[in-house]
Amino acid sequence: MKRVLGVVSEIITEEHILQISQIASQYGFHVQHYNNSMEAMGCASDFEIIFGNCTVDLIRSAKNLKWHRCVSAGTNRYSEKGLYRCSDSILSSSSGAFGKDIAEHITMVTLMLLRNMPQYMVLMRQGGWGSPQEIRTISGSTITILGTGDIGLAFAQRAKAMGAKSVCGIYRSRKPNDRCFDMAYPVSHLDHLLPQTDILVLCLPSTVETCGILSKERINLLSKTSYVINVGRGTAIDQEALIDALNGDRLAGAALDVMLPEPLPAGDKLRSAKNIILTPHIAGNIAHSATRDLIVKLFCEDFINYVEGKQLKRAVNREKGY
Amino acid sequence: MKRVLGVVSEIITEEHILQISQIASQYGFHVQHYNNSMEAMGCASDFEIIFGNCTVDLIRSAKNLKWHRCVSAGTNRYSEKGLYRCSDSILSSSSGAFGKDIAEHITMVTLMLLRNMPQYMVLMRQGGWGSPQEIRTISGSTITILGTGDIGLAFAQRAKAMGAKSVCGIYRSRKPNDRCFDMAYPVSHLDHLLPQTDILVLCLPSTVETCGILSKERINLLSKTSYVINVGRGTAIDQEALIDALNGDRLAGAALDVMLPEPLPAGDKLRSAKNIILTPHIAGNIAHSATRDLIVKLFCEDFINYVEGKQLKRAVNREKGY
Repeated sequence: MKRVLGVVSEIITEEHILQISQIASQYGFHVQHYNNSMEAMGCASDFEIIFGNCTVDLIRSAKNLKWHRCVSAGTNRYSEKGLYRCSDSILSSSSGAFGKDIAEHITMVTLMLLRNMPQYMVLMRQGGWGSPQEIRTISGSTITILGTGDIGLAFAQRAKAMGAKSVCGIYRSRKPNDRCFDMAYPVSHLDHLLPQTDILVLCLPSTVETCGILSKERINLLSKTSYVINVGRGTAIDQEALIDALNGDRLAGAALDVMLPEPLPAGDKLRSAKNIILTPHIAGNIAHSATRDLIVKLFCEDFINYVEGKQLKRAVNREKGY
Repeated sequence: MKRVLGVVSEIITEEHILQISQIASQYGFHVQHYNNSMEAMGCASDFEIIFGNCTVDLIRSAKNLKWHRCVSAGTNRYSEKGLYRCSDSILSSSSGAFGKDIAEHITMVTLMLLRNMPQYMVLMRQGGWGSPQEIRTISGSTITILGTGDIGLAFAQRAKAMGAKSVCGIYRSRKPNDRCFDMAYPVSHLDHLLPQTDILVLCLPSTVETCGILSKERINLLSKTSYVINVGRGTAIDQEALIDALNGDRLAGAALDVMLPEPLPAGDKLRSAKNIILTPHIAGNIAHSATRDLIVKLFCEDFINYVEGKQLKRAVNREKGY
């Protein structure tokens, strides 16, 4: 029986398919490329592997599926119990491909908040001019990064290079082994760190554990001169409490790339919160060609692990959610 | 006769005055502080030293002035011939105090351009949402920095730390001795570098030599996917040609903190150029308390050089203009 690898993604180019096919064919795999799940549906039962963020319907129909590899870092839409027919099916992510992109996004919005950039843009747009206002700098700031994976680490490196006073990582499961963090503590230390934090960055997956991790109580521990940045998942923050803190001047500002819900309704009060910068979940940018290349490269590495029966990297514990 | 140091600046705090007085008094100087030039006018002829960006009228009246130290990096408003009564009067700047602030500004606007941030902000403001668009990153970019002083160097460090593919410095007078630049060339090499440049950063003082340095011809050497950033002086760019290139899609975007004239009139066509980010000359931010502290610290160091008859740092060649 032929072994079939179904690539179901419109972001994968013909060059990528060639690259994947060269490796896959060495191990007896036939590669089929579909731009979307509809196209692939008729062949669903052929797939031993699916590479791409297909619909859950396609997953349900892929009754011989052994490995599903997402092109995203997040895999929440595949967390439904019993979704995968084979109980030993592996779900894995492209975690690790987005670190640089997202770290540049975090650097950008952090600087925009510290330097009052949204206000200057309004002034200039309205035909005005402006005088220097008190600004702040990454150089000299105390930064707390909640989540010490690929993204947290990449931002920590940049923050240190820009002269941050201290960069502290908060980890959930495994202590990060990297000198880019001045310190690393488990989540249990978070409450002690919040009052001294100038910039709090959240880069966490959505799990039972991370849901609501920045609660109203924790928001209240932050100083009124501090900023909150979220590039992980919207579920991590008590969004109501964040809006209240911003509008009540109990926080200096926030930049959210992820929020609840997405897309955010036109009239949602989050849009008009004070000193907020919103982006439509584009920090980790699948449209960036270098990132797509990296997603494919990491897949090819994982593919070899798969066919050789080795442990897969980036495999998701479907119960934990990451 | 008493020697008088007149501090004419509203950005200098009482603590700064104490700090200056402690040093100045050791050398027989009496320190007088004025918030503005009007207040100081009656005492103009007392001043041996003026620290601050006072009016040219005050300079004209300060007939015993030996040293004028600005709180800014630019000193153009004092370039009028014969302005200083004593022919051996020294004019010096606070060049060196603004590197970190301005480097953070350059980093911010570069990322905003590369990541289509102005467009996303419009979308979100209008109640919409957006899908990922092709973005680019500092990581992997070819960067050319025109001006290798304090500011150019500070940005080069940050760009390298963020993984820039290459960072090339273009110097006018003295080859920079720093490994943050991958290469450093004299201005004569500029035309060869422009076609390969992704991000061109101008951080030059306004001098006869730098006026119009980014001419129409040089703008045309840049690729249509490249970006121009100016944090030096507006005179460096042929602004008409820049607007034409932006509106004609012959440049991908620009971020100008300095322009002609300042303040920019409400209806100026620069404001509506395509893919432009304008800020009102605030990159080097005098309102930043850490920068003010540094300006005073550098002054105190220069003061000791002055009283001890040593060469002053940051002295301006009034003919060259920097």
